[in-house]
Amino acid sequence: MSYEPASFRPCTFHDSVPRFLDGGDTPRAFLERCLEVIALREPVVQAWVTINEAGARVAADAATARYKAGRPLSSIDGMPIGIKDMLQTKDMPTEQGTPLLKGVETRTDSASVLALRQAGAVILGKTVTTELGMSHPGPTTNPFNPDHTPGGSSSGSAAAIGAAMVPATLGTQVVGSIIRPAGFCANTAIKPTFGAIHRGERLGFSQSHIGVHAGCLRDMWAVAFEMSQRAGGDPGHPGLYGEVVPRAAARPLRLIVMEAEGWAATDGRTMGAFEKILGQLRDAGVTILRRSDSPLIEGFEQAIGDSLALCRDLCGYELRWTLENLIERFGSGLSDSMMARLELARSMSIDDYRLALLKREEAKRAFAAIGGLADGLISLSSVGPAPLMENRARDSGVTHTTGLPAFNAATSVLGCPAITLPLLALGGLPVGVQVIGQPHTDAALTGTAAWITANIAPVVV
Amino acid sequence: MSYEPASFRPCTFHDSVPRFLDGGDTPRAFLERCLEVIALREPVVQAWVTINEAGARVAADAATARYKAGRPLSSIDGMPIGIKDMLQTKDMPTEQGTPLLKGVETRTDSASVLALRQAGAVILGKTVTTELGMSHPGPTTNPFNPDHTPGGSSSGSAAAIGAAMVPATLGTQVVGSIIRPAGFCANTAIKPTFGAIHRGERLGFSQSHIGVHAGCLRDMWAVAFEMSQRAGGDPGHPGLYGEVVPRAAARPLRLIVMEAEGWAATDGRTMGAFEKILGQLRDAGVTILRRSDSPLIEGFEQAIGDSLALCRDLCGYELRWTLENLIERFGSGLSDSMMARLELARSMSIDDYRLALLKREEAKRAFAAIGGLADGLISLSSVGPAPLMENRARDSGVTHTTGLPAFNAATSVLGCPAITLPLLALGGLPVGVQVIGQPHTDAALTGTAAWITANIAPVVV
Repeated sequence: MSYEPASFRPCTFHDSVPRFLDGGDTPRAFLERCLEVIALREPVVQAWVTINEAGARVAADAATARYKAGRPLSSIDGMPIGIKDMLQTKDMPTEQGTPLLKGVETRTDSASVLALRQAGAVILGKTVTTELGMSHPGPTTNPFNPDHTPGGSSSGSAAAIGAAMVPATLGTQVVGSIIRPAGFCANTAIKPTFGAIHRGERLGFSQSHIGVHAGCLRDMWAVAFEMSQRAGGDPGHPGLYGEVVPRAAARPLRLIVMEAEGWAATDGRTMGAFEKILGQLRDAGVTILRRSDSPLIEGFEQAIGDSLALCRDLCGYELRWTLENLIERFGSGLSDSMMARLELARSMSIDDYRLALLKREEAKRAFAAIGGLADGLISLSSVGPAPLMENRARDSGVTHTTGLPAFNAATSVLGCPAITLPLLALGGLPVGVQVIGQPHTDAALTGTAAWITANIAPVVV
Repeated sequence: MSYEPASFRPCTFHDSVPRFLDGGDTPRAFLERCLEVIALREPVVQAWVTINEAGARVAADAATARYKAGRPLSSIDGMPIGIKDMLQTKDMPTEQGTPLLKGVETRTDSASVLALRQAGAVILGKTVTTELGMSHPGPTTNPFNPDHTPGGSSSGSAAAIGAAMVPATLGTQVVGSIIRPAGFCANTAIKPTFGAIHRGERLGFSQSHIGVHAGCLRDMWAVAFEMSQRAGGDPGHPGLYGEVVPRAAARPLRLIVMEAEGWAATDGRTMGAFEKILGQLRDAGVTILRRSDSPLIEGFEQAIGDSLALCRDLCGYELRWTLENLIERFGSGLSDSMMARLELARSMSIDDYRLALLKREEAKRAFAAIGGLADGLISLSSVGPAPLMENRARDSGVTHTTGLPAFNAATSVLGCPAITLPLLALGGLPVGVQVIGQPHTDAALTGTAAWITANIAPVVV
């Protein structure tokens, strides 16, 4: 199962729709093919917490009937989708990756899940998340090498795509929980503009996002767009702008390389492979701008240079009351890394939090100031391929077992869209390259991503 | 129980603290006095859904011990507080005013409730809310005349203060749910700046607020401040600024009369009484500005002139997924007025919602543009005294049985602080007068409110 870009065949959906309409295939048959892959791969990959086969078959049969009648509900009618187990589903427990919430039934669909059902999607199951979407890992393994982490916190959502089990899954990202695992598992995935997809009951973080992991750009975008059309964005936010299909491929004139906190931590082999991607871009006529090319870019890099610590402080402070409630209710049962987060957060005053908010606003202003310099930014999605499962890295007082989010914290702080593409392979493991845009340019970013996909060859090292 | 400002004695707490410290009184004895009033008044007033006497006594005894040791946890240590039943409490059900959620135990404290406990407050019980905090009323009656509504949606929180049962209660306001019932029940109450007090699990509305109903300004502010210090504001918001005691009384130089949508709907007797308040203010040297005095004020009134419909659209759209989940789960059981709201919201597209957000931003800009003209705004808290229980008014397609929020929708749209003071009595029923400030001037507004309380005599008609 070693990763080879040329031979990797993810599960895709949009290309089956014409056959659903002409009767050559059905959503039910599509679902059964997904279930076969799951039966084959799940014993090792362990991407799923719960699978609702019976419910999925009922939903797939209903979709089949709609296509037969020539009246599908949407572009994703009949698409089997996995839901990260941080999000509530009316027909499955929501356990949030902690044994404390084992079997908890909310009997409610999160806004995004409700929107998916309204669009006819087949809610197949819940995917593994790290503990409460933070650092402590679940059982999922990397679909390309089970000795390695799939990344997290959207571990199961990323692995299910890498294992070609389903065409799309939902993920959530507070720091680096979509883009990093998606890169580790050869997903095409989007962390949209902050607020673009309704977070339902998960509004407690001021910088978390719901995003989509998929096998291709078209499915990824269709899921995101159909959700936002029905559920809207977060309360007070305008939601995702665009159309139901990604923009046509459009070559960017200029791209800025974002170094963030990941640059210094990236191994030489990964960096070399990334530079080959940049070389291909230059050869295709894209101007590549570096931090040394403009004092504005240098100022931007400085403004995002403490994003990991900023995320730790903002998210820790915002998570306190949830954690205090769990401790009050259960006494113990949170991981050591979660308790370490809480201890850091307990030492914060409201003024410490206000200062962290101010730093985040300063980072956003520095980002806005480079908006006119280029069509977007480009960066790695992680500091290297997925580390071994037993690896434990530390940053800013927090232990990571699912890889460092050093290329992700900044885009979470900025609330800007990021799309990761499976462009690198190192020693049989995938590494993602992300393109990044200004807030609310998600649709335009799909055009950049489409152009790169069509014109830049994956680099295998 | 007819309302007479001169003889009305609400329950207050801060004036008992010196005796808690010198041993002349105890929080436990204070609680028992509250329970006596409740035993006397509750059969008619029906302010409470649940009262946790045993838990409250344990908490009051713990507070008593802390005062005895000279180490109270905060300025509200030992204060008995009622929690609107929209907010979660670990030790009592959270039913949200709908029979569909009867007995639902969340085993979790909302962020504000957790903060109150951390400050030593005694969480006495849950107060009646209208259905899901919207229009359909609960059983609560007006403490000054049981034939009349207490207002809503914070019906029980307002009535409990008017009946002098407790010194403070929490309310929530999406449209007019704190200030209007507080006015109907002779409360001193604050709807703070949007985001100033953490809404915990209730972040689903883009303009809802947690506020405080109290028997006096000092208790009101202490509760708000102690909560925000511990829980912070909403995620991404700086929380409530100020100190633990209200500002010293400060005479405003100028106040702008806000007409909003209530002016035309106000009965002549109420308007006459309000004009007498304005007359007293003028006599005391306060310049009163009207919409005819400045094109900026006229522009502001026009910008807020459609606030009721704007609230209906914004809140309806934001409530859709919650309502759809309840219908999916229970089949039926929502009130007719709630179903009418949902039908209106179902007809909205995401672009309709985006336009509503834009209108709200325009109202905020028009409000900011009058910020330099005066020290604040002044207005009625309702279009008259509490209507009879059977009264049914309609606005913007929504039926109201707890009075029209025509003076409240605008301040909810603006996200600005409003404090209501019990300054009018009409036919034995109270009517509130509210002072309104620019966002984040909550503390300064307490100085204005303190000056008015000390210098302006209530008007009895």
